[in-house]
Amino acid sequence: MAKAARVSPFAPERLPEMPPVPGARLAACAAGIRYPGRTDLMAVVLDEGTTVAGVLTRSKTCSAPVLWCREGLKHGKARVLVVNSGNANAFTGKKGSEAARITAEAAAKARGCSPGEVFISSTGVIGEPLDAAKFAHLLDGLVRSAKSDAWHAAARAIMTTDTFPKLATRRVRMGAADVVINGFAKGAGMIAPDLATMLVYIFTDAAMPQSVLQAMLAAGADTTFNCITIDSDTSTSDTVLLFATGAAAARGAPRIADAASADGRLFATALHDLMHELALMVVKDGEGLSKFVTIEVCGAESDGAARRIGFAIANSPLVKTAIAGADPNWGRVVMAVGKSGEAADRDRLSIRYGGVQVAKDGDRAATYDEKTIAQYMQGREITIGVDLGLGAGKATVWTCDLTHDYISINADYRS
Amino acid sequence: MAKAARVSPFAPERLPEMPPVPGARLAACAAGIRYPGRTDLMAVVLDEGTTVAGVLTRSKTCSAPVLWCREGLKHGKARVLVVNSGNANAFTGKKGSEAARITAEAAAKARGCSPGEVFISSTGVIGEPLDAAKFAHLLDGLVRSAKSDAWHAAARAIMTTDTFPKLATRRVRMGAADVVINGFAKGAGMIAPDLATMLVYIFTDAAMPQSVLQAMLAAGADTTFNCITIDSDTSTSDTVLLFATGAAAARGAPRIADAASADGRLFATALHDLMHELALMVVKDGEGLSKFVTIEVCGAESDGAARRIGFAIANSPLVKTAIAGADPNWGRVVMAVGKSGEAADRDRLSIRYGGVQVAKDGDRAATYDEKTIAQYMQGREITIGVDLGLGAGKATVWTCDLTHDYISINADYRS
Repeated sequence: MAKAARVSPFAPERLPEMPPVPGARLAACAAGIRYPGRTDLMAVVLDEGTTVAGVLTRSKTCSAPVLWCREGLKHGKARVLVVNSGNANAFTGKKGSEAARITAEAAAKARGCSPGEVFISSTGVIGEPLDAAKFAHLLDGLVRSAKSDAWHAAARAIMTTDTFPKLATRRVRMGAADVVINGFAKGAGMIAPDLATMLVYIFTDAAMPQSVLQAMLAAGADTTFNCITIDSDTSTSDTVLLFATGAAAARGAPRIADAASADGRLFATALHDLMHELALMVVKDGEGLSKFVTIEVCGAESDGAARRIGFAIANSPLVKTAIAGADPNWGRVVMAVGKSGEAADRDRLSIRYGGVQVAKDGDRAATYDEKTIAQYMQGREITIGVDLGLGAGKATVWTCDLTHDYISINADYRS
Repeated sequence: MAKAARVSPFAPERLPEMPPVPGARLAACAAGIRYPGRTDLMAVVLDEGTTVAGVLTRSKTCSAPVLWCREGLKHGKARVLVVNSGNANAFTGKKGSEAARITAEAAAKARGCSPGEVFISSTGVIGEPLDAAKFAHLLDGLVRSAKSDAWHAAARAIMTTDTFPKLATRRVRMGAADVVINGFAKGAGMIAPDLATMLVYIFTDAAMPQSVLQAMLAAGADTTFNCITIDSDTSTSDTVLLFATGAAAARGAPRIADAASADGRLFATALHDLMHELALMVVKDGEGLSKFVTIEVCGAESDGAARRIGFAIANSPLVKTAIAGADPNWGRVVMAVGKSGEAADRDRLSIRYGGVQVAKDGDRAATYDEKTIAQYMQGREITIGVDLGLGAGKATVWTCDLTHDYISINADYRS
């Protein structure tokens, strides 16, 4: 059983009001897959003509639903999204593929589309068979009852032990119409009894072919969902899907034929902004976190090198525990830079915490003042800046601290 | 201030009796570098003709003493080893190189050798200047008072917050004489206030040129010190040095001219055995550990792939916390295999805990019995076996669990 977790200190006071996305309707119900007394099955019904793009986990042991989505993305048309929580349907062998197929076929039948137009995700325990028969019969009712305003319910149904639902919305004026982008996510955090899985679903009524949608999603993920880390572990089920119903075209919004066009860049900017917000929400519900941490790396040999250095710092248990202890232990940052494998020159390296320089040119900064920096470390949001002094490469990575609560959440749940 | 740490459950009941290594004498004293009321400066005096081999950290931000040793290894002759604890002399800029030089020159003067024949290490806090003047004047006394039986004292002087001294000894019959190999280490564990550093010093009276010594040390380190991990963080100061005084030649031991000769293999086997013992001791004093964990990987595409998969499992916070919680959560092992980046086929993957098969051919094993496996997980030593089912590559990696004590040790010390 999952333990009751302390709510993240970064949980929002209220959820955002979500406008409808014409062409998309949602529904959720309690199927009793694992969690008693809460919703755990969700469907989004999409109008004909909806294109879909996706970014999926690179895990070599990915789940059956991820494999299913990978197939579906080859065609790039979507009519239904089905997500269950409570069971990840991962490492479940041929039975797992079978459960994915049963789910998709039931949803396709309810919707009157082909199974290839159904996208599915599962999140929860790994290695236990998912009995699709337990909930496949509910899909017909879900598809029929789907409504344009059920965003909060949908976001809640995909939570495992996230401590708050994660939703964001944007509106972009394009041509004669306002185009809407809505997204929701479940976090890489508090996911007992198994592992951190990130699921993100984004919906827009903008009209564009799959190739453009995919280019925008991949570019956006690169600097948002691919730049966050809770504990360096990669889920078998990470999934980001972006659906475009195209309904805004009927209201006068231009079709976006090219990501590099003016319209394309306008939309991509709003999309990136929404993805950034959701990605940070995922970090801010990280397992057991007490502090939100931004790692800004510059002066590296390349952007890729800067990102790898950022992740080496963000994933270092010694850096993360120091932050949890409000300890400005920049020696551990030096260590993490050194182990990243990327080019670094000790005598050019500079480090700052917030606006305060702590190390400069390979030595403690002359202006270093323990008291100032100790006070800064008491804050809830910490920014560590690292300048390699070598080149123009830069990257930002977001993470959280490593606390006693992380251990409790992940070590103690079977007791 | 370092907090008093609970002694590792794996601490030995008594330290091994260490025979003399002809040609090597040791001394330790309290220089007051950081720790009050304990020894923190150690010297080993070596007879003329001693050859030395070394394996040093690959960190790009390595400490000044590591840079000094790297230079010295180019000549491969050693007359003194000096180690201080309490300050790592890392990320201390030009002042750091200066402190290393002052230390080496003082030791060289006391010994009547060149500074290039002095090897030094420092361990402790990073980024704070090391004032060599505080202890350089003590080196003359240390060199003069060195004795052939001061092994325990030397091993204690290099501890930071290790909870026990780590020593091992071997004896090999070679020709007409018994050759001795003595080694001691400080652990990658309990090192507050900074980071896990592994220092290992091995001494033998066997006679061999540096090239042979280096080949044997590198080969041995590959499957011992390079196959252990506490928390995935790499120190700026990791150092393994092997000194051969050659004194056994006078007693009739053959000179070893080739690592692949019968004598060479005999010696290398004993050396590897001693390195294995010391490496496991380092893990068994890992920060806050409650369990010692062996990860055995086979069936990988290559030995290198097997090792990287082993480390992905051993470094996974989710795997480590599950073990701390006595939770046979093999789903997290699947996840770690998947994120390693190495070839894996979900449907060929098998996993066992101890002798019990838990997953086979990509699915939960038919014989899986939660009760048996839960009982196994209560033990203090856990072995996880992973068979990729792809090739002949294999590797073994050793680690420990991730506990509340790790967080306390690393997050709380400044409070």
